[in-house]
Amino acid sequence: MKFEMIKGGICAVKGVRAYGRKDGKFGLTLIAGKGTVAGAFTINKLRAAPTEFTVKQVARGQLSAIIANSGCANCFTGEQGMRNAEKMAELAATALQVPKAEVAVLSTGSIGTQLDMALIERQLGAVLEGVTVEPNGSMAAARGIMTTDTFPKEVAVRIEDESGGSVVIGGIAKGSGMIAPHLNTATMLAVLYTDAAVATETLRSCLQDAVDDSFNMVLVDGDMSTNDSVLVVATGQRGAIGIETFKEGLTVVCQALAKLMARDGEGATKFVEVTVRDAQSVADAREAARAILRSPLVKSAIFGERLDLVCGRTIAALGAACLTGELDQRKLTISIQSNSTEVLAVQNGLFLKLSESERSIMTAKELFLTVDLGTGGGAEATAWGCDLSYDYVKINAAY
Amino acid sequence: MKFEMIKGGICAVKGVRAYGRKDGKFGLTLIAGKGTVAGAFTINKLRAAPTEFTVKQVARGQLSAIIANSGCANCFTGEQGMRNAEKMAELAATALQVPKAEVAVLSTGSIGTQLDMALIERQLGAVLEGVTVEPNGSMAAARGIMTTDTFPKEVAVRIEDESGGSVVIGGIAKGSGMIAPHLNTATMLAVLYTDAAVATETLRSCLQDAVDDSFNMVLVDGDMSTNDSVLVVATGQRGAIGIETFKEGLTVVCQALAKLMARDGEGATKFVEVTVRDAQSVADAREAARAILRSPLVKSAIFGERLDLVCGRTIAALGAACLTGELDQRKLTISIQSNSTEVLAVQNGLFLKLSESERSIMTAKELFLTVDLGTGGGAEATAWGCDLSYDYVKINAAY
Repeated sequence: MKFEMIKGGICAVKGVRAYGRKDGKFGLTLIAGKGTVAGAFTINKLRAAPTEFTVKQVARGQLSAIIANSGCANCFTGEQGMRNAEKMAELAATALQVPKAEVAVLSTGSIGTQLDMALIERQLGAVLEGVTVEPNGSMAAARGIMTTDTFPKEVAVRIEDESGGSVVIGGIAKGSGMIAPHLNTATMLAVLYTDAAVATETLRSCLQDAVDDSFNMVLVDGDMSTNDSVLVVATGQRGAIGIETFKEGLTVVCQALAKLMARDGEGATKFVEVTVRDAQSVADAREAARAILRSPLVKSAIFGERLDLVCGRTIAALGAACLTGELDQRKLTISIQSNSTEVLAVQNGLFLKLSESERSIMTAKELFLTVDLGTGGGAEATAWGCDLSYDYVKINAAY
Repeated sequence: MKFEMIKGGICAVKGVRAYGRKDGKFGLTLIAGKGTVAGAFTINKLRAAPTEFTVKQVARGQLSAIIANSGCANCFTGEQGMRNAEKMAELAATALQVPKAEVAVLSTGSIGTQLDMALIERQLGAVLEGVTVEPNGSMAAARGIMTTDTFPKEVAVRIEDESGGSVVIGGIAKGSGMIAPHLNTATMLAVLYTDAAVATETLRSCLQDAVDDSFNMVLVDGDMSTNDSVLVVATGQRGAIGIETFKEGLTVVCQALAKLMARDGEGATKFVEVTVRDAQSVADAREAARAILRSPLVKSAIFGERLDLVCGRTIAALGAACLTGELDQRKLTISIQSNSTEVLAVQNGLFLKLSESERSIMTAKELFLTVDLGTGGGAEATAWGCDLSYDYVKINAAY
């Protein structure tokens, strides 16, 4: 497989048009592009109305449009909330002249307040015009779903399989952030398009694998939103591609978006990648990597640039993680890399004496922590996150 | 059952002598008191040497002394760490002239550094003198195990059963904190004594129940230490008491210590009690209460004194919690109490419009959040914690 990062986000995909706008904290995004569809949704038991609605829409396997708003999550809004989610689908269907049954609705923002449907109708006119006249509206679409994100997130990749087939996969995403001062939850939304022809069932299994290795491995604060959703639509306008190649390409795009989210974590001053090696199973490796990046103690120590604290707390987090396999501290090794250097900090269960210059690796803005569990199982996983800074508290205390 | 809070901590218990001291960040505590013993220990898979050692000692069912140090967790210290834990037991056994097999060893402090055994030997002389000459050394013993704790924690209760039997249960504890700037993990230690006569097996089951309803419901940051330990020793010097009465009294003492820990949470500006009602099972109620107090988003919103954010994020945390029962948002009700007033914020799944004066309840220093899940199951649980402040980050970044 060959792949190449290209410009254009979702609009680099044949058959996709998109646009979005923001009015203060309220944004609206509209995307047109017909094809097979698969989705991955939050497993939160108290899901928002649009999420419940979109789960059912996507289950039909075909999608023609996505309408997404930011500023209001339409969650804990009762029957009116469900009617409003349906109304959004209806508005998009009428605007783009597609069946209402083929429209997905995504929302992100405050919990417990109703949508301002009059505002959404007003915004829709301008956004529809953008979809019509602007062929490169991906960035505007990405901006329309931003909340506390500090930059819009888009990625596109051209992939080629051995038989020379070539397709594009593009995506936009937002998260994990909140708009100050009135929003209540950190939602992750991602919308992916491809011009590969992929059957619905195949699309579903490829998406699940890609999500497990990307969005499910991003940790900003360990909280799980009521609205998290990932959608992928295959327009098929460039034809077939090998499934393995497609899955790999989809994973690349999802991982690129996931890393952008980690870089834009609330209050983040450092980007942190954690790789757990030689676990007894992939599930254990994933849980271990997530447990480390979920720990407020580890994250505070990264903010404080203290390697000794990072290692001690990484060990406590590992021991507390829900691993099915056993851990032997005598086999545990921890090293840390920056973009220019690498330091071995814990070897076979013992802390190494480090020089001041070695410890200063922690001042790097990008850190890569590698934990080798030494179980002999050989399984590996990587997670992405950030440090815990004063600004995280500030943003989330809504000052 | 009647009970009365009394002074004296563990030294209010007949047959117990205790003392402790601190030299900078390094503390030592010695407790003498012979009796049956039960313990509850961290389930962290990477437990410290003293914890592994003490698990084995306590399994024998009889204890005569406890030696505890602060400043070094003696964790990730290899074979030398295990030899040092044994050496501490030996020193205490020699000092108090008791069998080494009946000495428990507790440590709290930095991970990855070896104990300064010379310092411990020097401290032991002074501490032993305190144990000998000072009958009320409980507070000194509590101080000896402090790390970032801002105050020593002790509690004692006199309980009486229906037949007129009367015994004392006393306890000291530390946590959940760290000493800046060189410590690596937040450890919870609690040591309880009673002069009731209680068989080892009974003591074990009473302790497990009491711990489930107290220390296991304290959440400061959701991290789990490598050294967390709770010990209870029954000297029997005041004779028998009804088991149910004893268990209730033990729970009262454990809960009082647990609340002191929550009040002294790192960087805490507010004490928060969360009660979950009408869950389908006690396990669900406990998990739900813990999930709410574990959420950095909920905790930041409490720090920010924003009731709307607290409710929205409580819902997100509830939905994400690992509950076995289903949740119906139409039945969910959230109210919040201070010591002077109460506000109903979410009723049957809908956010109520609140006045500014109602929202100002959040300025209280003690807040009691009640979440009624409305499942019809009737199960209830309470957890204790605190908000997430700038100072939490500051303390844990080791600035």
